Amino acid sequence: MKTVIIGSGNVAWHLAQAFKASGINLIQLFGRNQNNLKEISQKVNVPFSTENLVEADFYLICTSDQSIREVSRQIPYENVLVAHTSGSLSREVLEGSYRKACFYPLQTFSKNTNLNYKEIPFFIDAGWENDNLLLLDFAKKISENVMRINLDQKKQIHLAAVFACNFVNHLYAQAKEICDENEIPFQYMIPLIRETAEKIEKNNPKNVQTGPAARQDEIVIDLQRNLISNPIQLEIYNILTHSIKKMYEL
Amino acid sequence: MKTVIIGSGNVAWHLAQAFKASGINLIQLFGRNQNNLKEISQKVNVPFSTENLVEADFYLICTSDQSIREVSRQIPYENVLVAHTSGSLSREVLEGSYRKACFYPLQTFSKNTNLNYKEIPFFIDAGWENDNLLLLDFAKKISENVMRINLDQKKQIHLAAVFACNFVNHLYAQAKEICDENEIPFQYMIPLIRETAEKIEKNNPKNVQTGPAARQDEIVIDLQRNLISNPIQLEIYNILTHSIKKMYEL
Repeated sequence: MKTVIIGSGNVAWHLAQAFKASGINLIQLFGRNQNNLKEISQKVNVPFSTENLVEADFYLICTSDQSIREVSRQIPYENVLVAHTSGSLSREVLEGSYRKACFYPLQTFSKNTNLNYKEIPFFIDAGWENDNLLLLDFAKKISENVMRINLDQKKQIHLAAVFACNFVNHLYAQAKEICDENEIPFQYMIPLIRETAEKIEKNNPKNVQTGPAARQDEIVIDLQRNLISNPIQLEIYNILTHSIKKMYEL
Repeated sequence: MKTVIIGSGNVAWHLAQAFKASGINLIQLFGRNQNNLKEISQKVNVPFSTENLVEADFYLICTSDQSIREVSRQIPYENVLVAHTSGSLSREVLEGSYRKACFYPLQTFSKNTNLNYKEIPFFIDAGWENDNLLLLDFAKKISENVMRINLDQKKQIHLAAVFACNFVNHLYAQAKEICDENEIPFQYMIPLIRETAEKIEKNNPKNVQTGPAARQDEIVIDLQRNLISNPIQLEIYNILTHSIKKMYEL
């Protein structure tokens, strides 16, 4: 299946490498940003273009949500399959007379981090049964975690990821702020952060909750409230404490 | 330095093992819960008692915050050093005519998880200069991460840990709830959770924030708000989204 990646951001950067590592027939990188394309192109040894989109079997649009519709209009071929990687948009955002699908990789993609591509979950949702099977096979070449879903499920997965990744990272940023203000090297938090993440690989997070809120320890909670001067930080503290207390009410 | 651990909960369970692994002269386990004490005693091959506290050089009280004061009264010796492991209490909570200190290990301790004790940060705060040096040396036998702090710093470390560990675990629990309700195996979240935690070992969390709030993507934010039916979950979503948006305002 001749494959083209469209886009040159972090998702394209990683998926191009994942595709090459899995022996997928990646024949072109297409996009607007020549510098980015060039960099990926050199990394995976696949030609790029900013102007002429070659004919292929499968086009994967890895751009930002805002650009997907516009980019999808530029694919002039008909008997081809086109998918996008967005966590929130349906396949109907794609405008063309080709077959349409969603191909959603669940990971936080930053350049300059090494990812184990075999582990990345890929969620598949195509308009035609044959294309679902095609994309499931395709994704299984890359990863051991592949699942077919519908649009509602995809939106919920994306929401769960916002809690488990984006919000979690923001709490790390809040913890670092507290450390910085008190001359505590943030490095000391790393073993705790790692253990917290690793513990839930084998345990239901609900069963390994620790801390003052889970044990309804009002004395420590009040003490900590008085330590916080940043009003948004205090709001975060209050709502998460409230939510934990409610979850573990006797 | 002849050492006694008082308490038989998760902290005692792990520290007894950490002490033995580091060649510390642990001579007794003391506490109220005979079953728990027996289990730890067998694991580290150190005698336990529920009644007769032996004379030693150093007593480490690993009980819950609520019990520390009461337990501290039961140490009848004078020329000894007594410390507790609480993240929120000062050493002055200890009631006795011995030398007092805080000995705070920064980790989330659950039984049945294996911890790398060499990595656990220990924070030291003793009333006498000699005892600070003594405890720094003692902790360095166990771990590579040892730091002397004051009480204000300890409280802030504990607060930072609530954000980076307790609140983070609760967000994992929220993500699992979303997955469960939508028939998505929570296992699919694990690579994302692991990468989110690992990424900040080498990066400032502020510099690797991803997701709709960081890119001020109001369309996705509104879409996600409409997916949430649980009112507390929506409050969590709103305050964390607001806080991230503020951090990355253009």
